Amino acid sequence: MAVYTENVHLTEDGAAVEILDQTRLPNEEVMLTLKGREELYEAIASLRVRGAPAIGIFAGYAIYVLAAQTKCRDFDAFYAEFKENKAYLDSSRPTAVNLRWALDRMEAVVLASREKPVEEIVERLKEEALAIHREDIEMCLAIATYGLELVRDGDGILTHCNAGALATSRYGTGLGTLLLAKEKGIRLRAYCDETRPLLQGARLTTYELQKAGVDCTLICDNMASLVMKEGKVSAVFVGCDRVAANGDTANKIGTSGLAILAKYYNIPFYVFCPSSTIDFGCRTGEDITIELRDPKEIKELYFEKPIALPEVKCYNPAFDVTDHSLITAIVTEKGIVRPPYEENLRRLFAQSGGKAWLI
Amino acid sequence: MAVYTENVHLTEDGAAVEILDQTRLPNEEVMLTLKGREELYEAIASLRVRGAPAIGIFAGYAIYVLAAQTKCRDFDAFYAEFKENKAYLDSSRPTAVNLRWALDRMEAVVLASREKPVEEIVERLKEEALAIHREDIEMCLAIATYGLELVRDGDGILTHCNAGALATSRYGTGLGTLLLAKEKGIRLRAYCDETRPLLQGARLTTYELQKAGVDCTLICDNMASLVMKEGKVSAVFVGCDRVAANGDTANKIGTSGLAILAKYYNIPFYVFCPSSTIDFGCRTGEDITIELRDPKEIKELYFEKPIALPEVKCYNPAFDVTDHSLITAIVTEKGIVRPPYEENLRRLFAQSGGKAWLI
Repeated sequence: MAVYTENVHLTEDGAAVEILDQTRLPNEEVMLTLKGREELYEAIASLRVRGAPAIGIFAGYAIYVLAAQTKCRDFDAFYAEFKENKAYLDSSRPTAVNLRWALDRMEAVVLASREKPVEEIVERLKEEALAIHREDIEMCLAIATYGLELVRDGDGILTHCNAGALATSRYGTGLGTLLLAKEKGIRLRAYCDETRPLLQGARLTTYELQKAGVDCTLICDNMASLVMKEGKVSAVFVGCDRVAANGDTANKIGTSGLAILAKYYNIPFYVFCPSSTIDFGCRTGEDITIELRDPKEIKELYFEKPIALPEVKCYNPAFDVTDHSLITAIVTEKGIVRPPYEENLRRLFAQSGGKAWLI
Repeated sequence: MAVYTENVHLTEDGAAVEILDQTRLPNEEVMLTLKGREELYEAIASLRVRGAPAIGIFAGYAIYVLAAQTKCRDFDAFYAEFKENKAYLDSSRPTAVNLRWALDRMEAVVLASREKPVEEIVERLKEEALAIHREDIEMCLAIATYGLELVRDGDGILTHCNAGALATSRYGTGLGTLLLAKEKGIRLRAYCDETRPLLQGARLTTYELQKAGVDCTLICDNMASLVMKEGKVSAVFVGCDRVAANGDTANKIGTSGLAILAKYYNIPFYVFCPSSTIDFGCRTGEDITIELRDPKEIKELYFEKPIALPEVKCYNPAFDVTDHSLITAIVTEKGIVRPPYEENLRRLFAQSGGKAWLI
């Protein structure tokens, strides 16, 4: 029984990308079929598709769909058109690392096939886009499978933000184990932080879990301490945006507070991520710059009326860094890493020969 | 320079109660002049006036304003009418302790004056209502003054929920020191948790501080850990709803999490309250029942659209209990109490001869 939410895929005829419009969730489920340049661009820019891996998958399909519409017959004209489309899509969200990464990977396919007829290049682009998607699914499944080692039937899991299918593909990272457990008949109870200011936990995580039939309960972020104290939570599961070489981990604002509470209540705190998230160029969390975002996200967005006077200052950091000393283990597709992180994160890569962090 | 928000007072002619309608804050400042039975009742029931001490003050004025409208000339008729008004007002918010307390205190005045002419009883009721208000102002000022011993010019103070003038009179409890410091030229920087789900921190606390000219910054509750880590906070100031004999303290949901974070970052955590809040009949926080409230407060109230699917379960505790081991000191109008609380809370009352907790 498949329980995950289908987020991004290629239509059967391969002529368009189909997505679940995340801006309409959780109140409306609207599938969009996109093939025009402008609408593909707009889907990324307006966050209809969001989450770094999901944007990467979408970008691969998008550039293929545009390439398949080409009228060019010779390589140079085709490549010029491809590059124009690539630059256009790439400008839709300047800071999305996976967007550039996927588009570069697609361009490499074009360049490696320059001696081939245009139709064949287009066919290879399709294969590459499908491969990007498939690899993400496999990676998420591997992470979720490792996560199963950390839970027992009946456990309560506290989550923060959205690290599920909607941000990646199929299982997601931090949520993957909850979904996979459901498929395997292991009953877990999820407590989902609403995750202010953008409410991804409320809008997206509870949507995914509810649809999957996982027992889930929405709480406000400040209720985590009580939920832990009351013994409702066996472990905390979060995704992450970057892991430093010493194990310090940047994730959605509020994560570091959760880790401190978990430590106080003696509850294990697990971070789930692809190994490509580990950045050996970043020595500690001190090297990670925290993005500050628009005060409107706190005061106005989502609300019927502003919740504070216009002149009230807001501090709106998007992320915080969780000290490695608070993290019980980091779960990647290559395995579960435990302290000491400095040593064990390097060992993970040495053993697997992976160099993903260099990407 | 007075910096506090005027919340509740008697009009100059003594014929009506004037309040700042808190349901319209922070977007509109609407003063209401109330003298009809139904509109006085409705002001409490609809939370136009809120906060236990403020409701007590309002109730004193309200029952006086109704008594002053009497056409009765003999005591029995007057007292019957008084009791009817009292029962009616008392039913406006069944769980508000200060509402009943203030109305009982007003009734005692009527009974003690049964030999007097009705006009004189009405005059004594006015004096009693003004006394209730004045005593609350004095108590808040005493608490705020003790709080000044805990701050230095330039300090950053993190606050949660609303423990200011809008919940009490004039200075408030937890916010009192910030307002009094402003009057005295001591510069403090406030960081205000928005305080989900009902957003009292955003809607009321930043309103009061901004109006008072206190440097204040609004944050989401889950940003407290980062703000502490970045060294922006010298102390945490919160109000409270009940203190057990061992110092365990019930306050707005999220308070216990803040106390754990403060301990982790080695930041003092202070609780501000009238000594009447200390309940020696309650041995520890275990004896305090946590009120569970409507899921709509999390999912729907304030929002343009629901933030989660209708079928998603919510857990919505109104309060949590902060363990006494996490509290640096409890600040009352009788003085600052430090650990060991079991002993020192009792000593506070023995020294002052106070019996406020028996009320």
